[in-house]
Amino acid sequence: MKKNIRKIAVVVTARPSYSRIKTALDAIRAHPELELQLIVSASALLSRFGNAIEVMERDGFEIAAKAYTVLEGGEPELMAKTTGLGMIELATVFSNLKPDIVVTIADRYETIATAITAACMNIPLAHVQGGEITGNIDEKIRHSITKLADYHFVSSEPAANRVRRLGESPDCVFVTGCPSIDLAREIIERPDLDFNPFEKYGGVGVNVDLANGYLVVMQHPVTTDFEHAREQVTETLYAVNDLGIPCLWFWPNTDAGTDGTSNGIRSFREQFRPTNIHFFKNMDPKDFLRLLYNSKGIIGNSSVAVRECAYLGVPAINIGNRQDGRDRADNLVDVPYNRKHIKQAIERHFHNGRMESNDIYGNGYGGQAIADALSSVALKFQKTLPF
Amino acid sequence: MKKNIRKIAVVVTARPSYSRIKTALDAIRAHPELELQLIVSASALLSRFGNAIEVMERDGFEIAAKAYTVLEGGEPELMAKTTGLGMIELATVFSNLKPDIVVTIADRYETIATAITAACMNIPLAHVQGGEITGNIDEKIRHSITKLADYHFVSSEPAANRVRRLGESPDCVFVTGCPSIDLAREIIERPDLDFNPFEKYGGVGVNVDLANGYLVVMQHPVTTDFEHAREQVTETLYAVNDLGIPCLWFWPNTDAGTDGTSNGIRSFREQFRPTNIHFFKNMDPKDFLRLLYNSKGIIGNSSVAVRECAYLGVPAINIGNRQDGRDRADNLVDVPYNRKHIKQAIERHFHNGRMESNDIYGNGYGGQAIADALSSVALKFQKTLPF
Amino acid sequence: MKKNIRKIAVVVTARPSYSRIKTALDAIRAHPELELQLIVSASALLSRFGNAIEVMERDGFEIAAKAYTVLEGGEPELMAKTTGLGMIELATVFSNLKPDIVVTIADRYETIATAITAACMNIPLAHVQGGEITGNIDEKIRHSITKLADYHFVSSEPAANRVRRLGESPDCVFVTGCPSIDLAREIIERPDLDFNPFEKYGGVGVNVDLANGYLVVMQHPVTTDFEHAREQVTETLYAVNDLGIPCLWFWPNTDAGTDGTSNGIRSFREQFRPTNIHFFKNMDPKDFLRLLYNSKGIIGNSSVAVRECAYLGVPAINIGNRQDGRDRADNLVDVPYNRKHIKQAIERHFHNGRMESNDIYGNGYGGQAIADALSSVALKFQKTLPF
Amino acid sequence: MKKNIRKIAVVVTARPSYSRIKTALDAIRAHPELELQLIVSASALLSRFGNAIEVMERDGFEIAAKAYTVLEGGEPELMAKTTGLGMIELATVFSNLKPDIVVTIADRYETIATAITAACMNIPLAHVQGGEITGNIDEKIRHSITKLADYHFVSSEPAANRVRRLGESPDCVFVTGCPSIDLAREIIERPDLDFNPFEKYGGVGVNVDLANGYLVVMQHPVTTDFEHAREQVTETLYAVNDLGIPCLWFWPNTDAGTDGTSNGIRSFREQFRPTNIHFFKNMDPKDFLRLLYNSKGIIGNSSVAVRECAYLGVPAINIGNRQDGRDRADNLVDVPYNRKHIKQAIERHFHNGRMESNDIYGNGYGGQAIADALSSVALKFQKTLPF
Repeated sequence: MKKNIRKIAVVVTARPSYSRIKTALDAIRAHPELELQLIVSASALLSRFGNAIEVMERDGFEIAAKAYTVLEGGEPELMAKTTGLGMIELATVFSNLKPDIVVTIADRYETIATAITAACMNIPLAHVQGGEITGNIDEKIRHSITKLADYHFVSSEPAANRVRRLGESPDCVFVTGCPSIDLAREIIERPDLDFNPFEKYGGVGVNVDLANGYLVVMQHPVTTDFEHAREQVTETLYAVNDLGIPCLWFWPNTDAGTDGTSNGIRSFREQFRPTNIHFFKNMDPKDFLRLLYNSKGIIGNSSVAVRECAYLGVPAINIGNRQDGRDRADNLVDVPYNRKHIKQAIERHFHNGRMESNDIYGNGYGGQAIADALSSVALKFQKTLPF
Repeated sequence: MKKNIRKIAVVVTARPSYSRIKTALDAIRAHPELELQLIVSASALLSRFGNAIEVMERDGFEIAAKAYTVLEGGEPELMAKTTGLGMIELATVFSNLKPDIVVTIADRYETIATAITAACMNIPLAHVQGGEITGNIDEKIRHSITKLADYHFVSSEPAANRVRRLGESPDCVFVTGCPSIDLAREIIERPDLDFNPFEKYGGVGVNVDLANGYLVVMQHPVTTDFEHAREQVTETLYAVNDLGIPCLWFWPNTDAGTDGTSNGIRSFREQFRPTNIHFFKNMDPKDFLRLLYNSKGIIGNSSVAVRECAYLGVPAINIGNRQDGRDRADNLVDVPYNRKHIKQAIERHFHNGRMESNDIYGNGYGGQAIADALSSVALKFQKTLPF
Repeated sequence: MKKNIRKIAVVVTARPSYSRIKTALDAIRAHPELELQLIVSASALLSRFGNAIEVMERDGFEIAAKAYTVLEGGEPELMAKTTGLGMIELATVFSNLKPDIVVTIADRYETIATAITAACMNIPLAHVQGGEITGNIDEKIRHSITKLADYHFVSSEPAANRVRRLGESPDCVFVTGCPSIDLAREIIERPDLDFNPFEKYGGVGVNVDLANGYLVVMQHPVTTDFEHAREQVTETLYAVNDLGIPCLWFWPNTDAGTDGTSNGIRSFREQFRPTNIHFFKNMDPKDFLRLLYNSKGIIGNSSVAVRECAYLGVPAINIGNRQDGRDRADNLVDVPYNRKHIKQAIERHFHNGRMESNDIYGNGYGGQAIADALSSVALKFQKTLPF
Repeated sequence: MKKNIRKIAVVVTARPSYSRIKTALDAIRAHPELELQLIVSASALLSRFGNAIEVMERDGFEIAAKAYTVLEGGEPELMAKTTGLGMIELATVFSNLKPDIVVTIADRYETIATAITAACMNIPLAHVQGGEITGNIDEKIRHSITKLADYHFVSSEPAANRVRRLGESPDCVFVTGCPSIDLAREIIERPDLDFNPFEKYGGVGVNVDLANGYLVVMQHPVTTDFEHAREQVTETLYAVNDLGIPCLWFWPNTDAGTDGTSNGIRSFREQFRPTNIHFFKNMDPKDFLRLLYNSKGIIGNSSVAVRECAYLGVPAINIGNRQDGRDRADNLVDVPYNRKHIKQAIERHFHNGRMESNDIYGNGYGGQAIADALSSVALKFQKTLPF
């Protein structure tokens, strides 16, 4: 007799989310009792934000549905409208695909569209990366999704503890580690920089020399302070340009304020034509981690610096408060949005080379653990506070 | 020097929500440091669900904006789409009105549209009636909104305790009592049935005799079980019809499954033409409470039975699991969806008359307490889990 | 070698549209070179407006997609929003189904959503029933769709002439006749009233005696005058009630103002409890035509009176200006919204029995003609004015 | 007694539309019997497409409402969704502003959202620039809007004739000339290049020398062929780069396919770093016309080449079929998407200097004529085909 196959709909809304979930997607696809329904939405569909969908297709994933939801423009009200449109579109998608479980990833504002849509439609909801602490609107969104979710796949024991304290049943909280660490583990196992990033990914700016060490920068606008996004990124540009160290710079993802960050970068390039910076828009997650592993260190406010780089042992300079509150390893130092402080930090923190690996965000087998849990949990979509 | 007036946007999405918040609206409007922006949305705009907006206008409130959001049809996916459309519409409304604080009420699914829209737009959010326990999707929605909200106006100390345990700062949790109890207090102060409900509100069915005692029925469909809504309401109809006691029946509010309930009522009326039941669609909240206070008791699954009736001391028969988990007083007995059990409960529980008043859901001064808190809280829209 | 099958997406948005297109759907489904993609949208999905989708399923059609679009409420702005939402939903549907040709029917406001969506997506568009003349917003919508459409399947030579004068290429204008007449032809071929409408369709009100002749009423609200809808329908109710002739009354379809018409009917029923009127919501088109064919005549403002009844030879009393401008046969007399005039017209016009059949709207083979044209036209989605 | 002031809502959806309507906006604002309600929507709000709203504000216009509607991504279905969202948003705007007449401009796909919304809401609709002939989807949209509109302000007698032949009442067709020609008239009256475009507008690329003649390029993607947009623009880039003549290049407006055009430009810049081309995103319409008037000629597929340049006497090279069918003066020559043909045309057609002015698109007083008509037409929103 044929076994019952569970349909697992995973909604990917952004390039970094794909990077985080990739090994779980692999494991779901390979699992004999699961069927993967990969849904691509929001900025993951847009070339301006890294064209994640092309990477997915190159990685061999079949796309079950696309949901275009990003309303263009810089106003905060458009975040709400994009989220609302996401619900309208995802309701159609879920109605067509009839998944047994919906999976939502992390805490970007548009992910709550996935969560509420599943909740309204009485579809069991799994949340990856709940229980963490950060600043800005992500904080509200993340814990709000926890209260909508039926299963929690968390990165660390402290995160699991927070989810349980939020009233979630311990039976439904799984410390799987973050699947992004799975990729990091594979990188450490085979660390050589085996591709030419300029040939493979194009990008704009000078093809800098990577032989003697290079920096990686990834700096996102901070939502609740979007009018300052342009000034903030400009400080980092000055610091990197002044030092003259070869630098690979990655374009930010979508948010109110992206235009500020993007315009800041464009203006600086026009005005100073920096000769030590190359700009990329999108990159295969593994290639990106490999570049990180072989770099002097990472600068900016990306969570990659906090998470994957902890495992990889890559030194990181964290600018501003975007990562405030996150559990962290020793690889990280903090600086304000100030070119002098950023330059000093680069000079002091990046000359000692790689540090010891830290498994605070996972042991490198998170994807499989998530797939196994998805195949075995009891299906349910109701719960009650235990206190 | 002119004082700074805070603009308080209150979004009312349903008839019962208006009933709950009315005295707070009065107190906000009357407060010298507050300006009320009353926004009416979802089923509160529709005649099929009681035309709450007409009641508001009759009560002298000026409507700052309307947001039509209800997509017609019985599919669960339409709850998600209605919520998404609510975000699209409310984002425009908030952008036009620029409130200092947005207030959302209770836990119907469409109220999360208010909460997320405010969160995405960095507008401080207040939530009324968090921390309570019920079944079905409301449970997820309620606690999810708690995690999006910056201020919490709760009904009882147990509710406050739950909100604090969910990680909310004690500074931001206010035990105001539920404003619906304010109306109940006024009724007890002047209890006479001073109007003819048939003349004032029309409705359909026989004008039953109220002189020797009468029942009140209000039964909503249960979201996660919407296909049974028709059968469920039919059991109650049989029970009430069999006993022949005069009965005032109130139409349900909007939900997936409403059609089941409504069709059940319509079919029963066509088939049996009951002579002891009169059906109403909408009623001024005070008139409704006055009718309740003078009744033999209330039957169904409305939270009015649990909350206002606790204060009023009106006996209540609670059918099914819609109110499971709510803090409750002695006025309530539970029965399943079964005509025999409902009849027995009416015969046993409704012959002793009114019971003692219980202030479990408030002491009758909640509206003023909410307005005072809104005028004095520090404005903020960010927070971090304390654990 | 397998032949190339054309995918034909037909979007049905209302009960009367289904009735009009049914034989074309049959012929498309049966055609060896066509594949039918039946899309159901707007009021065709709603029980309040006759639940056309249930009729389609009973008729054996497979539904390729549903698009819920009706925003509930009586404001004219909701007609625009419903149409806009229709475009959002249909764009997803067309993107999924990838039709070779999209077919839109007649002139209700929401049908322009189908037309613009196809035009924006470069999908060839066929329009059924262009070139006719009526009053109100339908007039704008109909000719506007003609200018978006690539193929025109018109009912009559006068309509064809108008479409050509609007600049459409004669090659693309096909005088197929209206497919609704196909059903009428089949009725005349086998005219006996072979079912009990009360048993088969339920409805509300007295089961009137059909043996000695009966009236049929179908009266829709008039869009541009929606506030008077209630008064208008009340005049007809008085007239029919006063005469006491058995009457089968059909519920109106959705429009701004429907609430006025519906409320008018509901109020009248409560107040007068008419004993000679039975109210139906939905009916199989053939059963409906059979009832018409065997009736004394039809009263109201439905286009069925103008079109099908011309072919059937059923006398018709047309109230108000909703059908102004339509090509018409001798079966029709006009009256204003006035109970006296309506009564007089019933007495004078309905006592001579059926009239001669008139093929002004088709010869009864329109469905097949449409399917044949759809299989043979050259695919195109561009055109230029010839003058 | 105070005179009745008519509220005129003009919806501007793109940078070129603003340029076309500006003098009409001036005249409406100045008219004693009119009140201007300027609504900005679609790409007119976006910095990627020239930030038209900033130009309007700099020109002293007050914005009555904004409607963000552009869904980001390159799929054709997003044109439909953007239009649908436009209807949802504009219905709210019209409901708030309650205009007496709505004005829609020209024929971009999103303008039909304005037209249908007004039609559904029974608001009289005026259309500027009906009756013209072009290729692609604009052709369908334009004539479809004509059939929705109540008043027609056309550019030329041939256009008026076409609108009348489409069945519009001659009373409602006004040959005002295109208001864009009003700006051109003012330029001829004071033709000196009185500003430094690089200082005033920034842009990217070399600050080319304008002293000895320069080219202007504006090339849009062609909707129905969007996948070729990138190749098409690349041909023009090669031609201009090869010749080495100083060139001012203007970024395209939004359409499916914009990404192709934009990416084509970006890639070419990265690869060849052309030293004779400067790229601009937005410019005050008058400054743009002044640059055109002092140029050697314009290249691309913009309608400015056909319309304003006819009046200005500026030679134009029209690439591809985007302007096919438009009435045209002698200033225009046609070439295919081919670098050789484009180069040859530049060499042959641009060395004779400016040509004689031609008033085929207006005599330079269109804005005032439109305002006068808006103040005097009878208000109406119903019409019937006269044939």
